[in-house]
Amino acid sequence: MPILKETIKVDLGPRSYPIYIGKDFMEDADLLRPHIKGRQVVVVADENVAKLYLDSFCSNFRSEFELLEIILPAGEINKNLESFSLIIDNALGAGLNRNATFIALGGGIVGDVTGFAAACYQRGVRFLQVPTTLLAQVDSSVGGKTGINHALGKNMIGAFYQPEAVLADVATLDTLSKREFVAGLAEVIKYGLIIDRRFYQWLLDNIELLLARDFSALTWAIRRSCELKAQVVSQDEREIGLRAILNLGHTFGHAIENSFGYGYFLHGEAVAIGLVMSSALSSKRGWIEESQVEILCDLLDKIGLPSKLPEGVSPEDFMRVIALDKKSTDDGLRFILLRDIGEAVVASDVTPEEVLGLF
Amino acid sequence: MPILKETIKVDLGPRSYPIYIGKDFMEDADLLRPHIKGRQVVVVADENVAKLYLDSFCSNFRSEFELLEIILPAGEINKNLESFSLIIDNALGAGLNRNATFIALGGGIVGDVTGFAAACYQRGVRFLQVPTTLLAQVDSSVGGKTGINHALGKNMIGAFYQPEAVLADVATLDTLSKREFVAGLAEVIKYGLIIDRRFYQWLLDNIELLLARDFSALTWAIRRSCELKAQVVSQDEREIGLRAILNLGHTFGHAIENSFGYGYFLHGEAVAIGLVMSSALSSKRGWIEESQVEILCDLLDKIGLPSKLPEGVSPEDFMRVIALDKKSTDDGLRFILLRDIGEAVVASDVTPEEVLGLF
Repeated sequence: MPILKETIKVDLGPRSYPIYIGKDFMEDADLLRPHIKGRQVVVVADENVAKLYLDSFCSNFRSEFELLEIILPAGEINKNLESFSLIIDNALGAGLNRNATFIALGGGIVGDVTGFAAACYQRGVRFLQVPTTLLAQVDSSVGGKTGINHALGKNMIGAFYQPEAVLADVATLDTLSKREFVAGLAEVIKYGLIIDRRFYQWLLDNIELLLARDFSALTWAIRRSCELKAQVVSQDEREIGLRAILNLGHTFGHAIENSFGYGYFLHGEAVAIGLVMSSALSSKRGWIEESQVEILCDLLDKIGLPSKLPEGVSPEDFMRVIALDKKSTDDGLRFILLRDIGEAVVASDVTPEEVLGLF
Repeated sequence: MPILKETIKVDLGPRSYPIYIGKDFMEDADLLRPHIKGRQVVVVADENVAKLYLDSFCSNFRSEFELLEIILPAGEINKNLESFSLIIDNALGAGLNRNATFIALGGGIVGDVTGFAAACYQRGVRFLQVPTTLLAQVDSSVGGKTGINHALGKNMIGAFYQPEAVLADVATLDTLSKREFVAGLAEVIKYGLIIDRRFYQWLLDNIELLLARDFSALTWAIRRSCELKAQVVSQDEREIGLRAILNLGHTFGHAIENSFGYGYFLHGEAVAIGLVMSSALSSKRGWIEESQVEILCDLLDKIGLPSKLPEGVSPEDFMRVIALDKKSTDDGLRFILLRDIGEAVVASDVTPEEVLGLF
């Protein structure tokens, strides 16, 4: 029997939606059915997730709906215009109309590409997220950021487009590789650092349980992460101000992903290094203790996440990529820094020298 | 000296914006400047409009802004993913950030592609419309529909994305070819037919003045068209209901454009034929007099717009294209019909036989 543990509401007025968190949802369509409108449903998964879940997931819908299954090639390198076009071409080829519902089944990459395709298909159709990785469950499936990468930068083409519902089945995390699983923990840690000191302490205290994928500990970590993200997003859907704090470590992270080529580092791994770089910069400003940077590095080491840049990164190349990041403005580099543990701020006055000082 | 004749407000809450209508704006940046935010401006035009206006238009901005000029190949056949990518690639290549402003200078095609690129660039940047064709001034630049065509259908990929302002310079209409100019009149006539019987009568009475491109008559026709469109759009931005009436003639029109290949008919020409087909269907239902269909055909003949399908169109192929149109639903074909002159309705119960009866 499926276990529904939690329902969190993302409060966005007419675009509000629920996040369902629980276990063994995958073969139960009851939660999603009310969020589907027309008779046409398309389920998008990558080749890895398709092998594991596509058939059982789709079996819930086949009798009731006209079902189209689309399988994308896996990996960040395929979060691109070709995958976007693959979805659009197939949906048009199958004659899907404006009442169709797009469902993303998988990790953050499939969610981002499918969400962007849903945003653009006939100027917007219904969209549901069924995240199957920790990173997608705690971060990318919530908040409506969708998009694809460009050779010149990550997520450079996209839309703010909210799903109708998010269904996070914790049971799917059992099938993740260790590498994939721990990458998601980087985003969980981020929420503690930016906005909830007590949650950060809880993570430090309970990291062994999380690494053992204990159901209750995981459910709590996912729930708290989603709650914190929902709080921020509902105050600033389109990242005019506050929402930027969710990007702690991400300007560095994106530059790392871009410098090494998409796919070399997992997104969460690059973010982990970025969290340390942002913390180190905050510490150099005297905002947090140097010991806090060490505590963070120890935590990442224990988890098995990288905490520093590999040898051989050229600071100049790195700066060039950072300058193109969405988070740059006319006035200079904008970084998220830590005023304190649990208190992130937007700093628009970071100098190139401060960044170069981290090398 | 530029003459500002009218300012119309499109009322969409936080997304409201003005439409400025007047003459000889093209070398005056004062109206647009308050709508530009950052220091980076990109102006997109097609190769034809670029020759006429790009240099003089851009000369207003060069001293104050970091300016990028992008020239697209002309024609409906280029309203596609390649043109979209050309804009994105160039903008990223030039290092444009999220504060950049995209300006579409030209007809409906450039406006639609540029608007969609602005909607997607880094998940959305500011966007201004400077329409230089009658069709763009009365229709496509107003209301936030942006997008590109797909081999399987027109406007199948896109977004609802409102501009910050629309600047319609009636003087630019002087340089339009007769064919291009009269194509825009099809949309003007549409507004009369769907929602304003008196305006339709005014068009019948003043068609000679319009064809002579009389400034006052044109300004009034553009103003009234924009007002009527703004009224409808502000009640139903995302085409859940009422807005669909703006598609009178368009389901037929899109099928005509698609059947003959994009570029064979201008959009307005295909719409003209579509208006007659919709009127004929309405008349067969007994909703309007057959004489009204004749009056419309006479008006189109006088203007030099086509009023019937060319020989050799296969009704079966035509029906296939119609079935894929966005305006089709799970329940059947949805057409806009005329209950009366000046009163359009959405009819979801049109049978294939009724459509085939028009051949």
